[in-house]
Amino acid sequence: MEPHDDVRMRGFRSRTPVADVQGRIRAHAAPLPAETIPLDQTPGRILAVDVHAPIDVPGFARAAVDGYAVRGEDTFAASEQGPIPLEIIGDSQPARPSNLVLQPGQAVRVSTGAPIPPGADAVLQAELASERPGGRHLLVLGPVAPARHIGQIGEDIARGALILRAGRLLRPQDAGLLASLGLAHASVIRRPRLALLSTGDELIAPGSAPGPYQIVDSNALTLSHLARRDHAEPLPAIIARDGADPLKSALDRLLDPQRPDPPDLLLVTGATSVGQHDLMPLLLRERGHLWVHGVAIRPASPTALGALPDGRLVFLLPGNPVSALCAYEYFVGPYLRALGARPDPWTWPHPTLCLPLARKLVSKIGRTDFVRVQIRGQGPQAAVYPLETAGASLLSSVVYADGVVNVPPDSEGHPAGARVQVYLF
Amino acid sequence: MEPHDDVRMRGFRSRTPVADVQGRIRAHAAPLPAETIPLDQTPGRILAVDVHAPIDVPGFARAAVDGYAVRGEDTFAASEQGPIPLEIIGDSQPARPSNLVLQPGQAVRVSTGAPIPPGADAVLQAELASERPGGRHLLVLGPVAPARHIGQIGEDIARGALILRAGRLLRPQDAGLLASLGLAHASVIRRPRLALLSTGDELIAPGSAPGPYQIVDSNALTLSHLARRDHAEPLPAIIARDGADPLKSALDRLLDPQRPDPPDLLLVTGATSVGQHDLMPLLLRERGHLWVHGVAIRPASPTALGALPDGRLVFLLPGNPVSALCAYEYFVGPYLRALGARPDPWTWPHPTLCLPLARKLVSKIGRTDFVRVQIRGQGPQAAVYPLETAGASLLSSVVYADGVVNVPPDSEGHPAGARVQVYLF
Repeated sequence: MEPHDDVRMRGFRSRTPVADVQGRIRAHAAPLPAETIPLDQTPGRILAVDVHAPIDVPGFARAAVDGYAVRGEDTFAASEQGPIPLEIIGDSQPARPSNLVLQPGQAVRVSTGAPIPPGADAVLQAELASERPGGRHLLVLGPVAPARHIGQIGEDIARGALILRAGRLLRPQDAGLLASLGLAHASVIRRPRLALLSTGDELIAPGSAPGPYQIVDSNALTLSHLARRDHAEPLPAIIARDGADPLKSALDRLLDPQRPDPPDLLLVTGATSVGQHDLMPLLLRERGHLWVHGVAIRPASPTALGALPDGRLVFLLPGNPVSALCAYEYFVGPYLRALGARPDPWTWPHPTLCLPLARKLVSKIGRTDFVRVQIRGQGPQAAVYPLETAGASLLSSVVYADGVVNVPPDSEGHPAGARVQVYLF
Repeated sequence: MEPHDDVRMRGFRSRTPVADVQGRIRAHAAPLPAETIPLDQTPGRILAVDVHAPIDVPGFARAAVDGYAVRGEDTFAASEQGPIPLEIIGDSQPARPSNLVLQPGQAVRVSTGAPIPPGADAVLQAELASERPGGRHLLVLGPVAPARHIGQIGEDIARGALILRAGRLLRPQDAGLLASLGLAHASVIRRPRLALLSTGDELIAPGSAPGPYQIVDSNALTLSHLARRDHAEPLPAIIARDGADPLKSALDRLLDPQRPDPPDLLLVTGATSVGQHDLMPLLLRERGHLWVHGVAIRPASPTALGALPDGRLVFLLPGNPVSALCAYEYFVGPYLRALGARPDPWTWPHPTLCLPLARKLVSKIGRTDFVRVQIRGQGPQAAVYPLETAGASLLSSVVYADGVVNVPPDSEGHPAGARVQVYLF
């Protein structure tokens, strides 16, 4: 590798269309294997296997309300005007088996969740009963039909039933359901582990004030947070100095086969363009495969994509914060979601709005544009303003923007007044 | 407190409308104070104070592309047919100050991010340059205007500018922006801490298989996950046996003034109805204020609400899993979001769909109904099917349901074909 390569010779003579890069990524996006996790961590995870109920729920007939376990037919003739007396032979309480057996004319006081004693076939709700002083008798003030207010064995879930299908995005109540079946764990798709490498002599770690000629490495922070949004696990980011040796040694650390937490993919920011320090594409070609270098997208044209010999993808992202964010949304995010078997991984996860453009938006045929926009005005006056930005380096443009408009390569843009879809940040 | 109170006397003679309960909650929902957290934890948090930029970004004029720092006017006449030669006097690299000063007819090789040497006012992009063998001269193949491809001091963010407003929901790129300003922390609204107490002799902790007459406490698990969805921090849940003494001692533990992590609110499930074990409303009245007992809502009518003498709210939720979930969504979730100063705390966070009912949905005037529904069919055939459920205890109904329809108290329901709004789980 020669650091004084003719720069012009290494310029992008052709740029790969976004759809071709996405096609490459899709072709390598098989979901990760399963892992077993405790139920207090399941919500938002993707179930890896079908789950069948190992037990009946409930496992015994139980009171669904507070009141009295009775024989329904004993109450049919009861009313406020003609109450029917029953003998109270005892209490049934939750979690306590009792020996009580109900005979005609008898009742057992029950709390919600208590087992129903043999002989009873309904629960008279407390509101329809008037207990006599002494607690030995009650008056029934209205009828209750057999089976009313009783939770039957297996009524909620029958043993063996398929209760949750593989691929389900687990909800809070799903964890409750699995727990109520006596389960302690769930088998879910493992989350992708993401290695982050930022390159550049000028970079310092977040949390330090930049000195003269220094830049804080904000990319690793932003990309980590985006990866977490996409349900991935970013590993601690590494900063490498410019030059072949520091880059090689950083790659060695990240790809060390002895690591207990080997990354599923590698994300490098910087050193991917056509300048003399942009060694990453060459290094990737040395270590594996460089599939794409230069993409027909603004503002992330220096993006490169390749793979290690073991098939793990390597994304080379421009160092400019907005370009890095743009390349993340088009290429890395969808791949992470696909590895994690998320629903609709190829669709952006942002909420969207469809609103008219306040001024025309110009794009170039053949190029995909990631246009930062603001939404100004309320209700029917709301309109989309493309932000005037000098270049890709303005991180502020994605902070002040409300969202982005994605202009595909077959479009020259849109006239003022045209309705466009805004992906909201 | 007398465990053998006449049950009928304690029945719900009137039920409080949902809107009145929500009004009580709103009146007590002041946002929590701020806390300072590192930037790697900020996304999804609410900024507590305005942030002004402490420095200019960039802090020095830098190259926005790879190429050559030049005087723009030296290039005005250049073209592919009439290239203009310039002398290369050296390199400027990121993070390395140099002593080079540009004279007319000279150029300095620059990488993206490198400081622009004095005398230069533009960067000629690599594509418009052809470097001669030896690296001492280049040919300019086209013009570049002054200020082109240079990131000016303060161009992205000027020192002192208001960059993020208090109340902002922080995005991934906001963390990047704060870091690029040399900041290490952000001041955000503290997340509410939630104490969870489940009551009942029949309950066992999640992760155990239920024996005869036992029920797994799925509520604390589901409620914890819902609270996390609403950006709260649930404390480890406690299970208390039935009876006044176990409940009192559980409350003592949760409300211990020596706790390092005092809860901001208390959520109790079970023991809140009108049965003989339903001591929580009485205990709450003893310890503070019982404002509401019995709400005109199905399936969560035994819900109660009150406060401790120090103003912390106490929510008593029914033990039935679906009722608990229902009461959470109407009362607890909005309160947590308001404490956390989340945007639109009183609006449910679920995505919504508006679809026609496949069959009529009957509700009672004066009562709010939380109706579990499935959506069947695709596209124009999609329709909403209210689930036939025997009662509130069927956790499976909120697992098999796709969402809920909220029927307000002034509605008798809707005929088949009416369009209803479904809140998707």
